[in-house]
Amino acid sequence: MRVDHIAIAVNDANRALENYKKILKIDEIDVEEVPNEKVKVVMLNLEDTRIELIEPLDDTSPISKFLKERGEGIHHIAITADEIENDVNHAKEKGMKFLGELRTGSYGRKITFIHPKSLNGVLVEFCQAPH
Amino acid sequence: MRVDHIAIAVNDANRALENYKKILKIDEIDVEEVPNEKVKVVMLNLEDTRIELIEPLDDTSPISKFLKERGEGIHHIAITADEIENDVNHAKEKGMKFLGELRTGSYGRKITFIHPKSLNGVLVEFCQAPH
Repeated sequence: MRVDHIAIAVNDANRALENYKKILKIDEIDVEEVPNEKVKVVMLNLEDTRIELIEPLDDTSPISKFLKERGEGIHHIAITADEIENDVNHAKEKGMKFLGELRTGSYGRKITFIHPKSLNGVLVEFCQAPH
Repeated sequence: MRVDHIAIAVNDANRALENYKKILKIDEIDVEEVPNEKVKVVMLNLEDTRIELIEPLDDTSPISKFLKERGEGIHHIAITADEIENDVNHAKEKGMKFLGELRTGSYGRKITFIHPKSLNGVLVEFCQAPH
C-alpha cells in the first residue's frame, strides 16, 4: 500500500508547474487529459511518490466547482489498492462511504473515491496498483 | 527528495486513527506532543510515506484556528530537505516566501514552512531528512 499521488487543484497547471519546479527535484513529467473527470493532469514523478496538478477542462468539471468554492489547494490523496475490487469491498464493510463506482482514471487505471466524511475531511482516491 | 508526510488536522487524533486503520496497512504508529506547535501528533508509518494526524493541544494552537475556519482536512504536506539550510536559501532565491525561521519540529528535526501563496494554496513544510 503506497501513497500513489497527492492531487492539487489549480487554475493553470503549466503555471503551477513552474512554481513546483522551484522546490522539487522532478524525475519525469507526464501530461494527460482525463475526459471522464473533465480535467487536464500534469503528473510530477518524484523519487518515491507523485504530485498531480489538476486543471479543469471546462466549467462543468468537479475541479471548477472546487476552485470556485475553496480556491487552489490540495484536492485529494490517492492510495494504491493491490486488488481494488476486494479493497473497496473491505472498506465498505468497515463503513466507508464511496463516491460512485469503480471507473477509469489517468493512465487507464481503475479508480474510485471515499467520501471525505468517512476520513476526517480528506477525499481519498483508491487506485489500482500499476502492474 | 521525498514526501516525508501528509498532515491532517483533526479534532481527536485517536478517533481519527480508528478511521484510517480501516483503509490503511500501518507498519508502526508513533505518538508525540510538539510543544512548539502546541499539537499532539499521531504518525502513521506506511510502506513508503507517513500520514500525520494533528490534534491541537489548546485553543491557541494554529491547528485550532485551522479547524475553526475550515474544519478537519489536509493541513500541509512535508518534503524532506537533504541540506535544509541550503535548500531554504535556494527556495528563497527562487522567490518562495517562508513562514518563520528554521525551528524544531517532531522527532527533534529542523523544520520550516513555505507560504501557501507561493505554491498554489498548498502549505508545504520543509523538514530535515533523517540521518
